[in-house]
Amino acid sequence: MSAAPTTLGVPRPGHIMAGEMAQQPAVLQRILDEGAAGIRETAARIAARNPRFVLLTARGTSDNAALYAKYLIEITLGKPVGLTSMSTTTAYGAKPDLTDCLVITVSQSGGSPDLVASTRAAREAGAITLAVTNNADSPLAEVSEYHIDVLAGPEKALPATKTYTAELLALYLFVEGLRGARGEAAESLPGLAQAILDRGAEVKQLAERYRFAQRLVITSRGYGYPTAREAALKLMETTYIPATPFSGADLLHGPLAMVDNVSPVIAVVPEGRGGAALQPVLDRLRGRGADLVVVGQREQVEAASAGFVLPSGVAEEVQTILEILPLQLLAYEVTIARGQDPDAPRALAKVTETR
Amino acid sequence: MSAAPTTLGVPRPGHIMAGEMAQQPAVLQRILDEGAAGIRETAARIAARNPRFVLLTARGTSDNAALYAKYLIEITLGKPVGLTSMSTTTAYGAKPDLTDCLVITVSQSGGSPDLVASTRAAREAGAITLAVTNNADSPLAEVSEYHIDVLAGPEKALPATKTYTAELLALYLFVEGLRGARGEAAESLPGLAQAILDRGAEVKQLAERYRFAQRLVITSRGYGYPTAREAALKLMETTYIPATPFSGADLLHGPLAMVDNVSPVIAVVPEGRGGAALQPVLDRLRGRGADLVVVGQREQVEAASAGFVLPSGVAEEVQTILEILPLQLLAYEVTIARGQDPDAPRALAKVTETR
Repeated sequence: MSAAPTTLGVPRPGHIMAGEMAQQPAVLQRILDEGAAGIRETAARIAARNPRFVLLTARGTSDNAALYAKYLIEITLGKPVGLTSMSTTTAYGAKPDLTDCLVITVSQSGGSPDLVASTRAAREAGAITLAVTNNADSPLAEVSEYHIDVLAGPEKALPATKTYTAELLALYLFVEGLRGARGEAAESLPGLAQAILDRGAEVKQLAERYRFAQRLVITSRGYGYPTAREAALKLMETTYIPATPFSGADLLHGPLAMVDNVSPVIAVVPEGRGGAALQPVLDRLRGRGADLVVVGQREQVEAASAGFVLPSGVAEEVQTILEILPLQLLAYEVTIARGQDPDAPRALAKVTETR
Repeated sequence: MSAAPTTLGVPRPGHIMAGEMAQQPAVLQRILDEGAAGIRETAARIAARNPRFVLLTARGTSDNAALYAKYLIEITLGKPVGLTSMSTTTAYGAKPDLTDCLVITVSQSGGSPDLVASTRAAREAGAITLAVTNNADSPLAEVSEYHIDVLAGPEKALPATKTYTAELLALYLFVEGLRGARGEAAESLPGLAQAILDRGAEVKQLAERYRFAQRLVITSRGYGYPTAREAALKLMETTYIPATPFSGADLLHGPLAMVDNVSPVIAVVPEGRGGAALQPVLDRLRGRGADLVVVGQREQVEAASAGFVLPSGVAEEVQTILEILPLQLLAYEVTIARGQDPDAPRALAKVTETR
């Protein structure tokens, strides 16, 4: 037997991130098949304790998933929600009274010391504590009274992708569970996600546009706003282009001055009330001659400079789980086009140990 | 008497903003002299109703003042606080149960329809409502059960400056009042503010550094984080440089990849726990060779590339009111250096009518 020709194992840049993005339909299906029943049970037990207020604690990508949960809880449950300013506990030693509060901490690794400390402090302060992580054996899962495993499997690329959509779906099923619903709107997501990921060539073409971009503004409203924030984070950490996210309303309060025909804008336009509320912002942007790329419905994309058409007829509250997919692909493709490696952004470690 | 030579009345660019920045010591003094007693009385009446949770609603500059109030309330009162996602009410029609909730709406003009609608909805949902505005006759003051006038006088420049520091001080005195304290730490602020504003020449020199900057990152933690956000907003709306604010901890979760020796960083380093918590971030930034400008204590400025030294020995919770002053001046000076007019950023209207 002759020796096989030696293949020097030089991996394609970004192959880890690409592989993890591609797993997303399977991860979503796994959560629906293997996670949903447990999530509903946890939700039922927490609902029985009738929390009046919800606080969400997270950082980075998981903070964008937490923001999605904030919209869901406020809109579908009518409970007031706050996002924790963690340093009030970890740096200033605040001791809030958290009776009747549900504190949800979201973290891929479940390992960041400040999240563990803040969750422990919340539990001592009387809160019902829930950790949503990708690691059931993590310190965060350990200190929390309840735990939801997002079942995404190990994530190796530094830019989080599959754990983000997994967190979104797990949080959606949990909030649905809190109101005794089953979250049927999620059932079509794995198939729709696959159909979007299969259109990578469209995104690759869109990426050409941003190859030499010096800055980006990303805007949305309502359920689309977490997508704008996560897309900006993904673009910043992979391409290093400063990508600034704004809720459409905030954009009109000042930062609009920054937008001109050399500052491209990406608008995430949900089908539904969030998209309708964004309409005046889109009109203003068009009026200023902005280069506007839309991720949304066909008619919105056609009225813009370019875009990516999302499937129609999906319940608005789960569109968030699909909208991010072309934007993850975009961050990946722009990074490749700029000759960088999406798997290895400079300066980043997978578990960020903030204290 | 001979006729005086005709002076063509071409106003100096930025003279309105400059005039309003210069009024800040007098505005702060006016709040202490004429506003404080009323603010304490309002606080006492609200404290008697024992709100358990606080929600803050605002946009733009006022949203940064609201964020300051969030830190104050969590740290000094130990009450959980949330920042309202306004579209949940105005776009999605959420009807939360706000019994025992104090809803504070902060707005310079008191005129934005979404703030009025959201505050009205909160009051109908059982909240104790407080408006903090610069116009006692505004629709927002009208729909709120309680009102605090920040007494800043008419603000004509599009970039808000004196109303921001006025909102900060009014909110500080209010939160102090909620716990039955008088907020003595604020008494030295007018004099210290004047001393900072008198050092405009130092800021003008610092501004040279950013004349050709393509982007900026601004970071802080704790009580300094609202300053980072407000400084970024001020720089974006006047200079049009994309200035991205990050809490120090969030910066380590991804966006640090964006920072290199051509991406200048401004760090606001409070004297106290917020500054101490920021230290590892400063070390990482220095390790990456970032151009780091510090607004903070002398030793921090000396360890950085350049900076602006703040007075020492000021209680950390009121340093926020001083820290922003050199950064307002910086936004002004960079705008002038770039040949633009700080008084008239393109695309902005003074009262932003978001719905």
